[in-house]
Amino acid sequence: MADYRLHCFCQSGNAYKVALYLNCAGLDWEPVFVDFMNGMTRDPDWRSRTNVMGEVPVLEADGKQLTQSGIILTYLADKTGQFAPQGEDAKLEAWRWILFDNHKFTSFFAAHRFMRSFAPAPTDPAVLAMLKARAEAAYAVVEAHLADCSFVLGDAPTIADFSLAGYVYYPDDETGFNLAQDYPNIDAWRQRLRALDGWADPYDLLPGERIAPRAQP
Amino acid sequence: MADYRLHCFCQSGNAYKVALYLNCAGLDWEPVFVDFMNGMTRDPDWRSRTNVMGEVPVLEADGKQLTQSGIILTYLADKTGQFAPQGEDAKLEAWRWILFDNHKFTSFFAAHRFMRSFAPAPTDPAVLAMLKARAEAAYAVVEAHLADCSFVLGDAPTIADFSLAGYVYYPDDETGFNLAQDYPNIDAWRQRLRALDGWADPYDLLPGERIAPRAQP
Repeated sequence: MADYRLHCFCQSGNAYKVALYLNCAGLDWEPVFVDFMNGMTRDPDWRSRTNVMGEVPVLEADGKQLTQSGIILTYLADKTGQFAPQGEDAKLEAWRWILFDNHKFTSFFAAHRFMRSFAPAPTDPAVLAMLKARAEAAYAVVEAHLADCSFVLGDAPTIADFSLAGYVYYPDDETGFNLAQDYPNIDAWRQRLRALDGWADPYDLLPGERIAPRAQP
Repeated sequence: MADYRLHCFCQSGNAYKVALYLNCAGLDWEPVFVDFMNGMTRDPDWRSRTNVMGEVPVLEADGKQLTQSGIILTYLADKTGQFAPQGEDAKLEAWRWILFDNHKFTSFFAAHRFMRSFAPAPTDPAVLAMLKARAEAAYAVVEAHLADCSFVLGDAPTIADFSLAGYVYYPDDETGFNLAQDYPNIDAWRQRLRALDGWADPYDLLPGERIAPRAQP
């Protein structure tokens, strides 16, 4: 059995944050497929055994079951030293961006992508417009921040980068965003991350069937 | 000058999380009013001086400017020991709930309240319905968790409780929720927190004018 077992599926950028870290850190890990698209995380049994929050990723590590990508990244960085922020101030700064990511940057972008492209029924356009506007506001904050630095905390990648990078490699026809055109600093940053040893596309790294996004009106 | 200066306003439950902690911990703090409702946090000058993320709370402490309520709570708990989770596993568990709070529990509930009651123009009913459904799903997770424990981590309150409690004392006519009726475990938990020395209502603790919520159709 691998040292780390990651419960995940390929459409989940939150799972990808951890998978990409594990891969770039060169750790011994294996995926455990979660059939989210068919409701596995809503099953009460799955929730009580795996995660009461009904979410992936879940990481089995050292006899623990860790959930929340931000916790998992912190745990792994503390344990291995890889991509760890150096010093107390840097730790706080990394966490500041991880919280902003969970609250706004990933959150609205991912909700918009899911409801636009993968929800079972079409989503009201007003809902999509609201989510998109909030995602754009969060992306503008990160775009401005990355004007002055190569990675979120400066010259070297840390867990904050892996957190923010969860959804930035999914294709435009899923996300409804054109990052290369509209967010050049974010685009350059994701290219820098792509150059790391161990980088792989979410659809190559994570298990599950690829699903064609809903045709847009 | 007080030891801690909290940039805040009374409608912000995210600021209230920190204000309530400071008060219950008996720390020497003072509020700095942020005129969010008139756009102060969108001002580029305010952003560059105070918080590039355009958000409150911001805490001035020990010559630093800390942002993100989860970071501030962690910083204060580490420094003072008050309401600090005990041990590494408890720290991870507290952070797991703080992330869930930022991602879903506070996030959707607060966005729903703001757009329903305080946004300058009425919000599309489909948007409110989506935000409410997501808030309800997050509240159901916490309601189930609190069936077995007095506070989020067990018998004693920690920073995780202060994080989740940010918006649970705002009146029903603002939030559109009836917590006392629909979430009895959350209601009992907020009463337990209310019994702490230093507890105060957000509208008594934080500066700014109270605004009548928009009349509902």
